[in-house]
Parts: sequence; structure tokens; C-alpha cells
Amino acid sequence: MDEKLVSIEEDLDAKGSARRKMLVGAGTLAAGAALAQFGGLIRSAEATGGSTEKWPWPYKKLDPAKTAEICYNEWYRVFCGAAVINSVFSQLREKVGEPYKSFPADAFVFLEGGQVGWGTICGSPAGANIVANCIIGPRIAGAPEAHQIAADIMQWYSETALPVYMPTNPKVKDKIITTTSDSPLCHLSVGKWMKSSGHPLKSAERKDRCARVAASTAYRLVELLNDWKDGTYESSHDTSCAKEFGITGQFNCSDCHGDNVPVPPMPKKS
Amino acid sequence: MDEKLVSIEEDLDAKGSARRKMLVGAGTLAAGAALAQFGGLIRSAEATGGSTEKWPWPYKKLDPAKTAEICYNEWYRVFCGAAVINSVFSQLREKVGEPYKSFPADAFVFLEGGQVGWGTICGSPAGANIVANCIIGPRIAGAPEAHQIAADIMQWYSETALPVYMPTNPKVKDKIITTTSDSPLCHLSVGKWMKSSGHPLKSAERKDRCARVAASTAYRLVELLNDWKDGTYESSHDTSCAKEFGITGQFNCSDCHGDNVPVPPMPKKS
Repeated sequence: MDEKLVSIEEDLDAKGSARRKMLVGAGTLAAGAALAQFGGLIRSAEATGGSTEKWPWPYKKLDPAKTAEICYNEWYRVFCGAAVINSVFSQLREKVGEPYKSFPADAFVFLEGGQVGWGTICGSPAGANIVANCIIGPRIAGAPEAHQIAADIMQWYSETALPVYMPTNPKVKDKIITTTSDSPLCHLSVGKWMKSSGHPLKSAERKDRCARVAASTAYRLVELLNDWKDGTYESSHDTSCAKEFGITGQFNCSDCHGDNVPVPPMPKKS
Repeated sequence: MDEKLVSIEEDLDAKGSARRKMLVGAGTLAAGAALAQFGGLIRSAEATGGSTEKWPWPYKKLDPAKTAEICYNEWYRVFCGAAVINSVFSQLREKVGEPYKSFPADAFVFLEGGQVGWGTICGSPAGANIVANCIIGPRIAGAPEAHQIAADIMQWYSETALPVYMPTNPKVKDKIITTTSDSPLCHLSVGKWMKSSGHPLKSAERKDRCARVAASTAYRLVELLNDWKDGTYESSHDTSCAKEFGITGQFNCSDCHGDNVPVPPMPKKS
């Protein structure tokens, strides 16, 4: 089994894994053929009539820099999460059409501020995860790449000094410093940047920083999607908190727990 | 301005607020009329061709208990986030049809484990937030209720001893204890329950607990959506971390910071 596939709720059996690897290898295998191997999902799609639940959705390679620029500007209309989604889907609505036209991207404004200001997951990785999983499909449909790309994005976001993308015509002309969040959480990402920069939440600088973080995430997302389209995608995340520590989580334990990291209940050895 | 509308990225002006209140009061005002007052969104919908971006989507009141039961069973197929989404949308596909048929609910399996196991926002409130915002629309479309319902759900989830919903035919027959997470984060919600119950992450008890938490969230969500449909919805969340403390966040500061809660940079007094 591919150790990089972080499956929290179930360990797919060896047979399922072999099937997945075959599907990954085939790359361009039609969605119908892929679905035929996963009866559970077919039943679901038939039961619900979900015509958008046939994966992968048609995808045409996009320009990362152009996508980032769209995202930067969209941030000022719909904020981080919906900006990332729209930066990709608005182009695919033009190049492909459906099912992108039927996706209600603007509904995802609520991803702002870590979901309506609660500081949970930053809307930029949350939006990127939605895009990857809508295009490639969920792991239960037999393709693990979107699940892996989501984990890649979370790790990249946590480890990278952000923002990396410089807009061609930035609304704030002053230098925007970069910080590393060690976490995909809005509270930590924004909080560490505010602490280092000295700029408050409602400042123009903080807003432009977040617009550039969204643009940076959209850029990275499109790089990964293009690799997937080319059949050259390889997952880059290298750990699973659930497997290593027996609990869902990040890798910044000491940020909250200090030196006193608790040990969760573990399965009894048989 | 309605103080309960937690707007992170912008303070809507008094005129916008007055318009919103009128719309809320009207309740059944047609989406077209509502959109006519918010030109920005109309331009967006025309530009992108997003036919699903006309709000509100048609909604028929659902039975909370039936929805919870669907959600409980769906958890074992698609896990927390997609289970909450499907518990509502599968019924509305039957009762209403489009745009629910075109929503790729199964793509949201990745919400499991706080997004592919990273322990960020629990998939249950994340899924509920998606449902509310797809049906009612984003705050930039002029209706604040979905934004408010999302905040209500986050606060309810954090303050409630979960799970509250008992499935009619539970897969785990033993008693499942309840815990209060003080947070919408998966890591804290699951971690506190594992600590109190002694059951590990991969145990049948933990899985059934999470299935019941998803079902409990779906139940609460439908109660709120039904109130909104009846025109009797009133938001119940009572605080905004951004307004009170100058940073996006939850209200469990000492969980991570102990007695040493940092003060973020604040705007200079003019």
C-alpha cells in the first residue's frame, strides 16, 4: 500500500491499493471504467443522480502565474477560499464549460478568516482542497491523487515563507514581509504574520498579505494539477499524524502543548 | 449594523445593512429581486456563467431526525463532511431537483479527519457551513443568514456535549460517552473524546462517535434551515473574536496559550 495515502477512516485493502495503482498508472483511463471497479460509488451516483460525480472532471492545463493573478484580484471580491476556487474554475468554465459552470464558487466566501472568522483552516488551502477533489475526485472513487494533493498543499502551506507570489500590480506598494506558519490554520498563519509585521488585522497590509497568500496557493495548486494531468504527479507530503501519533493533527504539537504533549489511547497489542 | 454579523474582511456600511434587514424581513423575496440590489454579484454571475449562483436555492423543509439518520448511515460511506452535505442534498435532489443534482457532494470526502487527517476544522461543521452557504448564499450576495448560521453551528458544536443524536439502529451498541470540545477543530473534538473514553482513533467506538456527531450536526443544521425558511431564524452566536480581540480565532485561548495570551497589533487610535 502506498504509505503516502493518508487514509484516516479506513485502511484500504491490498486489492484496492493494487487497483488504485493500476488506475494511477493508466492515467487517462476513462471515468466510466474507473467507476466500474468501485461499485459503491456507482450506486451512490445512480441513487442521487449526481451527474457531476463522475471523475475526473475534464481538465485543461492552466498557467500558474495567470491563475495567481486572477486569484489576487478575486480576493478583493470574494476573499481567500472562493478566490482560490474561482481562480481555477473561472478559467475552466471558459476552456471546458460544464461541470465547472454548475459549481457555486461564490457560496464559498464563508471560508474567509478560517470559516466565518473562527480562525480554523485558512481559506486558501481549504479552497485548493475543494478544487483538487472536485476535479480528480475523492479517494473512495478509486483515485488517491486529490487526497494526496490536499495533504501536499497543507504541508507546503505550513512550511513555506508566505506569501511567495508578487502580483503584477499590487494594491499595497510597500514590502510585505513573509512568515512561516507551521500550520494551515488561519489563526496561526495570520497571527504569526501580524506579530512579525506589526500590522493589525484590518490593515491594508494584512489584507494584501492574505490576497498574496491566496495567489501563492493557487499558483502551487495549478502546478500540482498540471503535473497530475501530465501523469508526472508525485505526492510530496511525507508524514501522517494519525499513523505516527494516533490522532488527527498537524506537526506543530509544541505550539500548543509545549513540552507536555499528551499520548492518545492506542490500540492494544494483539 | 447587526453586531452578530461577523464580517472579517469588511465592515458593510449602514446602507448595506439596512438593505439586508429589509431582505431578511421579506423572507420570501425572489432571488432575482435580491440580486438586483447587489450589482457586484450579478456581474460576477454573468461573467462566469454560474447558473447555480442565484440565491437562495429553492429549499423545502426537512425532518431533522430523518436527516440525522441518513447522515449517520452516510458517515460509513463518505465520512463526516460529505455525510452532512449528502444528508441534506440527497433529500433536496428528490424534493427539488436542481441545483442540488449538480452539486458534487461525494468530492467532499476529503473533509474527513479535519481535512485529509490534518485535524483542522471538523468535517461536520465544515459540511454544514457548505450546505447553509450554498442554499442561502454568501454574505456578499446580500443575505447574512448563511454566514450567521455557520457561526451558530461553530459555537453550538463547541459548547455542546456531543454526540446528542442516538441513531435508531446504532452499529456500536455500547454507550458512547459525550464530551464538549470547546472548539470546532477535529484534533480537539476527537482528542478530548478519546482522552475521556479511552478509545483509540481506529476503534469502532470512535468511528461511531464521529458518525453520531455528524448526525447531531445535520439535525441542528436542518432545524436552523427550517427556521430560516419559516422566516423565524435568529442568530444565536454572541461573539466575534476578530472584533473583540483583533484576530480571527475561537474562544478557547487558554487551551493553547495558557495564561499567556498574546495581544495582536491593534489599530492606532486616531
